[in-house]
Amino acid sequence: MNRTNASKIYNFIGAEAVLTEAEDLRKYLTGLATSFGYVLSDKNGTVFYTDSRYLEGAVNALKDTDIVVKQFVAPLENLISSYKQIAIPVGRTLYPDYEKLKNIGFEIVDSLPAFTSAMSVKEDYELGYIKNACEITDRAFLALLDTIREGQTENEVAAQLEYLMRKFGASGTSFDTIVAFGENSSVPHHETGMRKLRYGDIILIDFGCKIGGYCSDCTRTVLFGDGGGHDEFKNAYEAVLKAHLLAKEKITCNMTGKDADAISRNCLKEYGLDKFFTHALGHGIGINVHEFPRLSPKSDDKLINGMVFSDEPGVYLEGKFGIRIEDTVTLSDGVIESLTDSDKKLIIL
Amino acid sequence: MNRTNASKIYNFIGAEAVLTEAEDLRKYLTGLATSFGYVLSDKNGTVFYTDSRYLEGAVNALKDTDIVVKQFVAPLENLISSYKQIAIPVGRTLYPDYEKLKNIGFEIVDSLPAFTSAMSVKEDYELGYIKNACEITDRAFLALLDTIREGQTENEVAAQLEYLMRKFGASGTSFDTIVAFGENSSVPHHETGMRKLRYGDIILIDFGCKIGGYCSDCTRTVLFGDGGGHDEFKNAYEAVLKAHLLAKEKITCNMTGKDADAISRNCLKEYGLDKFFTHALGHGIGINVHEFPRLSPKSDDKLINGMVFSDEPGVYLEGKFGIRIEDTVTLSDGVIESLTDSDKKLIIL
Repeated sequence: MNRTNASKIYNFIGAEAVLTEAEDLRKYLTGLATSFGYVLSDKNGTVFYTDSRYLEGAVNALKDTDIVVKQFVAPLENLISSYKQIAIPVGRTLYPDYEKLKNIGFEIVDSLPAFTSAMSVKEDYELGYIKNACEITDRAFLALLDTIREGQTENEVAAQLEYLMRKFGASGTSFDTIVAFGENSSVPHHETGMRKLRYGDIILIDFGCKIGGYCSDCTRTVLFGDGGGHDEFKNAYEAVLKAHLLAKEKITCNMTGKDADAISRNCLKEYGLDKFFTHALGHGIGINVHEFPRLSPKSDDKLINGMVFSDEPGVYLEGKFGIRIEDTVTLSDGVIESLTDSDKKLIIL
Repeated sequence: MNRTNASKIYNFIGAEAVLTEAEDLRKYLTGLATSFGYVLSDKNGTVFYTDSRYLEGAVNALKDTDIVVKQFVAPLENLISSYKQIAIPVGRTLYPDYEKLKNIGFEIVDSLPAFTSAMSVKEDYELGYIKNACEITDRAFLALLDTIREGQTENEVAAQLEYLMRKFGASGTSFDTIVAFGENSSVPHHETGMRKLRYGDIILIDFGCKIGGYCSDCTRTVLFGDGGGHDEFKNAYEAVLKAHLLAKEKITCNMTGKDADAISRNCLKEYGLDKFFTHALGHGIGINVHEFPRLSPKSDDKLINGMVFSDEPGVYLEGKFGIRIEDTVTLSDGVIESLTDSDKKLIIL
């Protein structure tokens, strides 16, 4: 019988019962993607309550594990009435749900710190999924480059990239793919649209896919033809790439998120570009494409072995161009290993 | 200057200030897809506070509207310190966020009923987006049928369908596309995977796309070759189709969700199949693919003109097959208009 994360979290928290509803946390406990359900652990074990849409699938998937699957029958209160103390992820719980439990008289324990800590350090099977997602991400990007043509829309390029990731085995995207042509690249989270590709355009692509419910995240910036006049862009590209690589070289175990962020930020400062680096250096990646830890100017989050996060410095010159270079990386034996790792030397198509 | 939904909601609620953070509600107020921001309305107007990733894009998009865009500078408390009363969507607010506002001393008003009501009845521009998404959905499905081949995986078929929707102009999918072959179709929310298509398989496809941030939702069940032995399936298909069409014929204005659900459920009962109809008849569709109203056995939600929802009866015979036939529909002048509407007569490929 396979031990799931449900027993790990239950034992770590030490409350009488642990009740989990939030979709990503439920996925962490059960390994299953579901849009409805409750996971309830107590000293007798763990039950996953879900509805008819997922019941048959969950029973099959969990038959050799320590989780029993049952059909959920409302109200929730009936499932937990025997407990005095219950652990829930307070910071992920809606106000009316919290109030209901409080009013029944439960002593409430916060389970969220346990989830945040456990989910940020990846086990081997989790890292396996992420590595697989990252390999597909790299492979799809390289295959995409051969298909890009003048006159295509941002939407068409995004469609092709998503198709390639799916074809190579991904179950979906980590987030809506961002494809920004030309001046659109200066909006860090541009909404991909109908702008057509022209000779000399910058192409910024921020994309990722999922395997086993785990995400990859990658950004590349390339040039579509070079008829000259790109000196400012090329200089900035060199600076961003240096900031990206320096972070990989210098980030180490027990460093804080702000110290990591400062590596890239200080590097861009030497080029006078730090004022255009308007976001954080990175964020944790796992079941969620944005999770603990943060690598930002104010983050005291400690980076430790087994964490997976992004290294993504960028600069954005309004109305002119934007550049972002991002890899998904992991901290392993105190050094950074790049999980997405396609060539980052400036590509001119 | 264009009046946005922000002023509509503010005027409807009548609180001193209306503060909105939830992503879908923020999208409804601003028209923009963003992953961070606050919309704050008071008697002086509306300000959308967001971060550097969205600032330039939001300023451009909202320059001719009644919403002013500003960069968010923490803490939130500084933006709202002058108010005594503040409206927030209580049922969509996390417990710590609610507690913080309560402890500062605000009188809290619930804005959620106003959002639910306003968002469920679509304005013309919203219906325009949904109709466009539905047209692409139909067109992509028909184009997909020509590409399905024996030996393809569920993932490959999903990839092709998503590519076609993107190519036809969609900005993304409404949800992770479900493609279920053969016995996998009996799991209502099957996780699309590596099962290969074989002659004689049932193919169930649940899919949708987004235009302007608004969703479509559609399910079709077809047969991949018919070498006989499908009598039980074919009879059940006829029953589900009748239940689907009867709902379209009979649903009318001011009907409750449970009365609508009963139309299809009673129809399936005549075939002895109601016990296999294990989910609700439908759900509202808009910015979210699942929203108000619910068409289920216990729903008192009232169906009124301008609402958009799904009509999706289904039956699931464990280990054998599943059938679901779903269209996105709208209630217009008291009658149902089908927005997705590709042929529902049983297709045998």
